[in-house]
Formats: sequence, C-alpha cells, structure tokens
Amino acid sequence: MASVAIGESLGAGPVWPIRDTARRPLALRQVQLTDGFLGDLQRSNSAASIVAGNTHLTQERAWENYRNAAAGLVGVEYHGPVFEDGEVYKWLEAVAWASFSAEDDRPEFLTWLDEYSDLIASAQAADGYLNTFFQVSGQREERYEDLAHDHEIFNMGAMIQSAVAQYRATGNQTLLNVARKAADHLDNTFGPDKLIGFCGHPVVEMALVELYRTTGVERYLRLASFFVEARGHRHLKDPRRHFSSIYFSDRIPVRETTYPEGHAVRAMYLAAAATDVAIETGDTELLAALQQQWDNMVAAKMYVTGGLGSRWEFEAFGDPYELPSDRAYAETCAAIASMQWSWRLYLATGAAKYCDLIERQLYNAALPGVSLDGQAYFYVNALQVRSDAVVDDSRSPAGGRQPWFGCSCCPTNLMRTVASVHHYLASTAANALQLNQYAGATVSATLPAGEVVLDVATNYPWDGDIRITVREAPTQPWTLSLRVPAWANSASVSINGDVAWPAEAGYHDLTRQWQAGDVAQLSLPMRPRLVRGHHRIDDVRGSVVIERGPLVYAIEQVDQPAGVAVDDIALVAGGELTERFDPDRLGGVPVVEFTGTNNPPGGPGYQPATVDEPAAERLTAQAIPYFTWANRGAGPMKVWLPVTT
Amino acid sequence: MASVAIGESLGAGPVWPIRDTARRPLALRQVQLTDGFLGDLQRSNSAASIVAGNTHLTQERAWENYRNAAAGLVGVEYHGPVFEDGEVYKWLEAVAWASFSAEDDRPEFLTWLDEYSDLIASAQAADGYLNTFFQVSGQREERYEDLAHDHEIFNMGAMIQSAVAQYRATGNQTLLNVARKAADHLDNTFGPDKLIGFCGHPVVEMALVELYRTTGVERYLRLASFFVEARGHRHLKDPRRHFSSIYFSDRIPVRETTYPEGHAVRAMYLAAAATDVAIETGDTELLAALQQQWDNMVAAKMYVTGGLGSRWEFEAFGDPYELPSDRAYAETCAAIASMQWSWRLYLATGAAKYCDLIERQLYNAALPGVSLDGQAYFYVNALQVRSDAVVDDSRSPAGGRQPWFGCSCCPTNLMRTVASVHHYLASTAANALQLNQYAGATVSATLPAGEVVLDVATNYPWDGDIRITVREAPTQPWTLSLRVPAWANSASVSINGDVAWPAEAGYHDLTRQWQAGDVAQLSLPMRPRLVRGHHRIDDVRGSVVIERGPLVYAIEQVDQPAGVAVDDIALVAGGELTERFDPDRLGGVPVVEFTGTNNPPGGPGYQPATVDEPAAERLTAQAIPYFTWANRGAGPMKVWLPVTT
Repeated sequence: MASVAIGESLGAGPVWPIRDTARRPLALRQVQLTDGFLGDLQRSNSAASIVAGNTHLTQERAWENYRNAAAGLVGVEYHGPVFEDGEVYKWLEAVAWASFSAEDDRPEFLTWLDEYSDLIASAQAADGYLNTFFQVSGQREERYEDLAHDHEIFNMGAMIQSAVAQYRATGNQTLLNVARKAADHLDNTFGPDKLIGFCGHPVVEMALVELYRTTGVERYLRLASFFVEARGHRHLKDPRRHFSSIYFSDRIPVRETTYPEGHAVRAMYLAAAATDVAIETGDTELLAALQQQWDNMVAAKMYVTGGLGSRWEFEAFGDPYELPSDRAYAETCAAIASMQWSWRLYLATGAAKYCDLIERQLYNAALPGVSLDGQAYFYVNALQVRSDAVVDDSRSPAGGRQPWFGCSCCPTNLMRTVASVHHYLASTAANALQLNQYAGATVSATLPAGEVVLDVATNYPWDGDIRITVREAPTQPWTLSLRVPAWANSASVSINGDVAWPAEAGYHDLTRQWQAGDVAQLSLPMRPRLVRGHHRIDDVRGSVVIERGPLVYAIEQVDQPAGVAVDDIALVAGGELTERFDPDRLGGVPVVEFTGTNNPPGGPGYQPATVDEPAAERLTAQAIPYFTWANRGAGPMKVWLPVTT
Repeated sequence: MASVAIGESLGAGPVWPIRDTARRPLALRQVQLTDGFLGDLQRSNSAASIVAGNTHLTQERAWENYRNAAAGLVGVEYHGPVFEDGEVYKWLEAVAWASFSAEDDRPEFLTWLDEYSDLIASAQAADGYLNTFFQVSGQREERYEDLAHDHEIFNMGAMIQSAVAQYRATGNQTLLNVARKAADHLDNTFGPDKLIGFCGHPVVEMALVELYRTTGVERYLRLASFFVEARGHRHLKDPRRHFSSIYFSDRIPVRETTYPEGHAVRAMYLAAAATDVAIETGDTELLAALQQQWDNMVAAKMYVTGGLGSRWEFEAFGDPYELPSDRAYAETCAAIASMQWSWRLYLATGAAKYCDLIERQLYNAALPGVSLDGQAYFYVNALQVRSDAVVDDSRSPAGGRQPWFGCSCCPTNLMRTVASVHHYLASTAANALQLNQYAGATVSATLPAGEVVLDVATNYPWDGDIRITVREAPTQPWTLSLRVPAWANSASVSINGDVAWPAEAGYHDLTRQWQAGDVAQLSLPMRPRLVRGHHRIDDVRGSVVIERGPLVYAIEQVDQPAGVAVDDIALVAGGELTERFDPDRLGGVPVVEFTGTNNPPGGPGYQPATVDEPAAERLTAQAIPYFTWANRGAGPMKVWLPVTT
C-alpha cells in the first residue's frame, strides 16, 4: 500500500498536484472504503450502474462510431450527439477507477479497459486528432469550424481525463499514449501564435493539467493556461446566434469574475481548471479571485442542497439570489464539477469550508441524481415538484429518474465520481492526516513521522458517531485532524473513551504519540435542525428546511396523510422535530416528523391582504432525506417548508 | 355616426359576432376617445409608435420580400424571421384602426394602406398562397413541409385579420380580396378530407371567424372550427424534436383543457379562437370548457399584473402556481391575446369578471410593454429586476425597453391594440348600454328604445371619478350599466348630484327615463390597498402588492433613499400608505409612500433558523405605477414587497 511520489502519478487519484499545496491528496489505494454507506454506494456503482452503462452505450452504438473512424469511413451514420465520445470517456474513466475496488469480482472491467482503449487508439487520426463525429459524419468541412458547439476539444479533454485515470489506476498506457498524441495535436493547433480559440465547453483545461502532472510535459500546462486565459473576451462566436458569451463563460476573464454565470457545468469546470492552473503556476492572484468567486457563489447562487443553476434556459446560473425551488436546474453534473473545484481549492488552502461544501453537494446535489438501485438518473434536481406538474421533458423531475438520456453526461459523470469518491476522504499536511469526509474505510498515509494506518468505522450519514482506530502508527507524535462540519454546533471528541470535549467547526487537531489500538471518537450531533434562507431569495421567504447531519430533508407526497397535498403543508413554528429510524422505508432511513398545517387548496390567486387566511387543520407530516425521494414513483415533493403559527 | 348591422361589418371594430351574444359590441365610430389617459395614449400611438413602426419595417427590408415575391424572384435573400410577414400585417392593422381616429392629421396612413395593400396583393400567388419566406427564399421544397415552425398559415392569418380591419375601418377591399383568396386556398388545402394539419402558431382561426363574420361565407367558419378541433391530438411533429406538443397547444384538445399550458401567446390565441367558434356554432359545451379554463388560469397561472407565462424556456405557462417574479416571462403579446379572449367571453356571457381582467391586463400587462414616449418596448414584463442582474438577452427587462426586436410581435401587437382600444369601452344588450372601461370618450349606441349619446369625462386611471353626461336619449327608459371593478370595495353612484349610494362589484344598472343633460357620477375608491397571493405561490409568500385603482404599483430603485437597494426593502405591517400626485414624475403620476425597512444585504445564503435576522433600519419608500417603470433608465425594480413587523 505504497504512496505515490509527487510527479509520479501511477497509483494516484484524480488530482495530483506537482507544486506544493497546503494539503496533499492520498494515493488511490491509500483509502479503501469498507462497510457503510459510501462503500455500499461504490459497490452498487460497480455492480449496477457501470455495468448498465456499457449496455446503454452499446445500444446507442457509440462504439460503432469508433469502429467506423478506425475503418476510415466518412459520410456514414453517426450515432448520438456530438459529445457522445465524451460520455464514452467518462464511463471508461469510471471503469478505470472502479477496476481497483472491483477487481476481484469484476474481471470484465479490465477487459473493457483493454479492448475499448485499443479501439479508441485505432480511431485516432495520424496527427493525434480524435473526434468521431467529425471523422465519420462528413457533416463538417473543417475541424474546429464551430468551436462553440462541436465539442471536439471537449471530447478530447474527456479522453485525456479517462486516460490519466486508467494509467493511474492500472498502469495501462494505451490510452495515455492516445492522450499525449491528442494533447500534442491540440498544442500544435492552438496557442498565442497559432489558432486563437477554445472549446465552447471547458474540460480539456483540467485534463491537460493532469496530463502535465502525469507526464511532466510543461507544454500541456501552458496550453491549459492559454485555454483558461483566452476565455472572457467574447471571442467565441455562436453561428446560430442563439447562445451568448455568458453561456460559454466567455463574457469576463475568469480572474475578473465575481459571480459564476452562464451554463453552470461549464462555469464550474472552468473554475476548477483555473484553480489547477493557479496551483501549478503559483498564481496567487488568480487563486484569490477564484476563492472570492467561490464565496460569492455559496452566498448567493447556490441552493441549500448545494445544487447549482437556477435556469432551465441555457442550464444556467441565474442572477444573485435567483433560486426558485420548482424550476431549479441544479444539474447533477454541476454539483460534481463544483465538488471538483472545491477539492482543488481545499488542496490549495486547507480551508474546511471547501470540504463542507463537498459533503453537502455529495449527499444533496450529486447523489439525488441516481436511484437507490443505481439504475436510473435525474439530470435536473429540483427542490420542489408541484401537484399537477406537467412532464414536458425527459429531464423533468416530475417524470422521475430515467434509465438514460439522449445527453447522458450526468449518469456517466456520477459513475466516475462514485468510483473515485474515496479520494475526497483524507489528505495530509506535514505530520498531519486530515479526515475530510466520514465513511467506513481503511486509510493509510506516509507522514514524515512514519507510516500511519487507520480504521474508520461509522454508520454515517445516518449516525454521527465516527470511531477511528489506529492500526499502525510511527513512534513520533503526529496529528489526526478531524473535520467538524459547520452544521455541527455541538460536536465532541474523545480519545480511548476518556471524557469527551467539545469540538468547534473546522479542523480539530489531535496531536499525540498515537499507539496502535488507540481509538479517537468523533460525535457529530444528528438532531434534526431548521435552516432558513437569505431575505433576497424570494422562493424561501418565511420558510425553513429540515436538515439532519449532512442531509437536507424533503417531504414527499407518498409519506403524508391521505388527501393532503405537500403543496399545502406548512410547519408550525416552535414545534418539535422527532425522528425515528424506519428500517422498512427506502432501504432504511431516519424519518423526521413535525407538526404542520394543511392550508386548504383552491380559492383566488390574489385577494385583499385584509382577508383572513382560511383556517388550517393540524397534522403530522413526515420528511425523508432529499436524496432518497422519487424512489417509490415520482410525485409532488418539497424541500422548503413555509412556517406558520 | 350610424351603427353597423349584424352580418354587415363595414364600420365594425375587431370582433363582430353574427350569432346572438349576451352583449353586442359597438361599432368602431360609436366610441371616440376624447381627453384623458387612453385618448392621449391612442394619439401617441399614432404619432410616435405607428410612424416609427414603418421606419423599422422598412429598415428591416420587410417590404423588399413582397417586391421580390411580386417579381417572382426565388432564391434571393429573404429579410427577417419566417414570421416577418405577420409583423407587417399587425402593423398595417394598426394603421387601419388608427386611420379613423388619426384621419385628419395623418394622411399618410391612408396612403400606406393603399400602397402596401397593393404591394401585398401583387405578391400573392395565383392560387391564393401568400408567404414571402417560402416564395422568395428558396429554402423550402414544398409548402407546409414544416407546419410546426414555418408560420405560413400564421402569416396568412395575420393578413386576414389586417384585411378585415382595413375593410371595416375604411371600406377598402383590396386586402380583403387577398384575404378571401388566401382563405379559399387554405380551405382547398386543409380539412378533414384534405390535408390534416394546422399551424404551429394559432391566429388564423380567429382571423377566419372574422372573415366569416365579414363575408358570410360559412366555409371560413368551418375551416376555423377544423383548425381548432384538429389540435390536441399530438399531431404536429417538430422535425427538430426540441419542441413538444405542449409548446404547440397540441397535447390536449381545447375542450378538454383544464389549464392553459405551453407557449402562452399560442395558448391564448387558440382559446380566443375557440371562443369565437363556440359563439358562432352555438357550442355551449365548448364555451363552458373555455370559461372553466379561464377561471383556472386566473386562479393559478396568472401574475398579479395579469401577466401570463412563467417560463423563458418556450415562452410558456408554468405549472399551476409557478409564478416567479424575477423570471416572469409575461410577454406583452400574451396579455394582448388574453384581452382578446376575455372580450369574447364577455360578449358571450356578459360577466363582469372578463372586463375586470381586460382592465388589469391593459394597464399592468400590456401597457408596461411600451415606453411613455411610445418609442421603446418590453417583450418580457418581469415583476422584479434584481440588483446585479446580468443582461443576457435583448428581451431582458434589466436591459430596459428596446426600440425594436428581431421578433417584433410585441411592438406591432401593441400598436394595433392601442389603435383599437376604444372597442373595449362599451357594449349593449337589449335596452342597456354597458360602460366596461373608463376613459374620456363620446359613446353612442342605437338601442331598441332609440339613439343614445353619452359624454364620459374622467381622469381615470389617476382619479376614480367618472362623470357621464347624457347628450342624447330616447324618450323611453333604458339602462345605463356601469362596471364596478372587483377591486372597488366602496364604490358609489349618484345621478344629477343627488345623494350617492353604494355600488357593489359587477354591473350596476341605472334604469330610468334619461334626459339630455342628465349626469351620472361613478366614484371608484382610489385609496392605495394591499393585496396578497395564494399560499402555493412561493415567490410572494409573506409579501404584498400595493394597488391603487386599476393599477399595480412597483418600487423602482431611482425613487428610493440613497444606498438602499430595492431588493432589501420590506413593508412594515400596519403602516399607512400615503399618496400624492407628483406632476413632475413620469409625466405626472400618483406616488404611494410607505414605511419600510432596509434589511442589510450580504451575509450567508443559509443559516440556522435560530439565528436572529439582523436589525433593519426604518425608511420611507416610494412606489410608482408598475407600467411606468424603466422610463428613467432601467434598474432594479420590485412589485411584491415582503412584509415585516
């Protein structure tokens, strides 16, 4: 269980900085999920989601595009949207990360990696270009003639990410060689003295930095930096004139951006990439601008779930505080991209708030995107579905999760995220080991003081007790640093069963000469609590959200008294929130009950303020973890609860 | 000043039923606006808006399309969107209606009617087809190959409306003959035994009913009925697969529709047309379904302004109670189309609520669409513009009104609506004359009892006193029926200065043997009042709107104390609303002042509900009529005011 040296990324996880950062990630195999929620999730991801993903991609004839490209066919039928290659690569990245944790029971994963990598390699043009839509469809005369929409660079970026993942996870270099050739081709094509341009959809920037981190080739970092800095000057032209510079994150340079805007996924991938560039170039000014942008986003452009993007139109961020629950877009991919950004900012700074947000988004903005059986997906994660909602789109939350989409970025993105989710768990800094997220796991690290191995046992997120047993420890003192989430207002810590002492939000350091067998216990308060929103968020005025631990709760129609629509339920102020673990509901979840009222439906839309509200009956309503909704059919649901007296 | 016989529509206004209806409209020249708000508006519409409209259409080279079509050119450059013809016709309809009221000072209006009608006639194909995009662009192989998008029938529908208007207003039959040929062509092409299909955008249905009313040719009514009934069976296919049946009002037959849905303008034009068909075919079942749909719309799918359409995406109605202020679409055209629908339902039933809504929408949903100088337009009428709003579209309210749009339906629609707005003022039923809207005007009618002429003098909507002087009256008794709006909770009526008596909402009948010189006085209460919204409308929870008379009020940034953002202003419950007429503001408007608070901006997006709200300073805030906002530059604005204690 060796660590990976900086600059040698075989065995590393998704992000592997070369430059010094405040925190170092652990290598892929230094964290292994064991029993518990995230471990179960990762196992289900391999057994159900990734396996079904191959079936879907095969049914879509995605591989045929590669076979046709390899055969040099032009003008034949192309299958899927122009970014179909990108979905293939994200899925293959998931296979790569999962091949490690699933290697014993999923031999086909390694076969897929080998065979599909060979196929992809065979489709690459001699000069390194690779994009099956262009290569086989015959619908474009010149490469890069529509940078705004064609996703050529995006697809190659996703391929580079996939190649880096596969190399790090397995050592197989087939796809890495394809990635280097593609990156060389891009570097020969784009740059200050070459073609000035960039892809309408960022992702290659992050990919190129990781390729630099994997190969040490500085040109890749310079090209990533060029792509990041070239944006924001309204350079990209949309031939259809339908999309604006805002959509493409091309209105303002990233270092001048105060709020993220436009297409949420693009904005987040760009911000994550800019953070990578800032880290590797030592650009502290850029890093500071990104931290400020992140703060502004969290304060004014984020849902309480961590969901990002308020507008269906252009899948975009809205104006500050424009955060409607019903029309929340909150694309699953946007949450994932934001987690990638926060992780980079965390590594750069060590600030706990970034891991707080990763936790919030993992459980409440990314995981709602997949069903409990790992077979169906939400693209859009609304915080409310109304009674009488009309399903007008396959993405409509009122229609429930779908097995697949014409644009299946979210399913494949979830697969690679869950397959590598353990990389968010821990990090190091000098003689300190940080636990950033809590899950049953074995964690090992090589500190200057020596080798550390920990067992983490917990029923998190259902339970707030985290028990950390030291299995191996150096003789020198070192620090076990535990993240106490900002929501945990009465956390406590004890060692070896001694008296517990309170732990404030942030990182709580336990520095001592640890012995094998020592046990540190972190207790996070799991009493349900109420949260309110900023006065500028119209949608949540006079309303609260129930949270419990890291989980946001929702009321779903199926759990409420007969004849009472969730649309009409209010929470009675000052009432108690009671909880009970229901082993028979949704695979076993803590249910929170509260006293509410049922406002009679119907009546006029508007009336004089002097008219009294109609009398409302009392009732007991039940809330479930938001991410588990729509697993018993899709129906009305609400996260925000109006408060009544 | 003769009336027009039923079935002889020369001299009639926009809607002229043949079948008996509960109320009869007056002829075009039987209502003449004199001094006052609507008269000023109509004069400005002629002098500024319509004149500029010709300049814009000429600059867009819209007329060149006709000249090219007339010359038989194919494959030449086509100018404008595929519905450019439709804008031309709406503008020409405005010229037709305005040619009457502006005939003394606008001789060019009659010239335009003559010359442009000749030009349009010369462009028509021999078989009656007329659509310059198809005729000159060479981009389509067959007519009607993309009914969903090409607007061929829509354009001919707008032409028929324009032709009917011109014939009624001037007697000129040039365009009417074009309309008959086009309608015959459509009737030869579409129908149960011919091509089953209809236009993606309704409008021809209303046009065909009016053509039937003008010509007596029943085929046109049957074709209108066919087009109405053929919808709702998911027949229309979008070759781009981007738009659903919902968008095209093609998901549910109109007689089964409970809530309007999809593209708001299309849904309203269809509902208005279906009402026309129900009237002329005596289809009481269809009429009842439309009345129920109207009730549901008003209760759950309408903004307090009367604005319709909650979603930018697809310019569409949202789900019931989905009514965000900031992202309100509330297209100017949707309000106009709804006024057309309500007028038809009023004629069919005589219910006051339809004229109530016409009033609300005229002042608060249609008129906000045009600047006070008549030179700039809003396409979208949001109820809120936030601080830090980004302008990402020419339709964005944050960008202010625009002189014109690539799709300039709203400006031309406003022009024809204002030019004919006097047709909403009065109606008759047996020996009763109803005043439905209040404005300085002369109104004449031929009742069974004899000829009636009234002078209406009022400073409405600024003032609630309406003084009606009988100038001519028959010797027999007859009824003067005055609409008391539902918002007027303490209206009173007096005759010849006698003691005033209270008048309930609805129509208030004054039946007597009127003498020339008699004066009836209606006093509507103009004290500002507060209105609240339904508990299912998230956006307005805990908030109120200020209304005064028929006007909805808004707070605009420019009127507030320095350093206080409208986003942060709340209204203190129980405080007084004081008003004063400010002659120097916005051409003279009643300003309403209230005691408010300034919630400090900034701070976290979400926090525990147990944390106290920060202390807020008191201030005096000022509200102006919503329709006058953005006439001193565009900036933040809000209609709904959170209530605080």
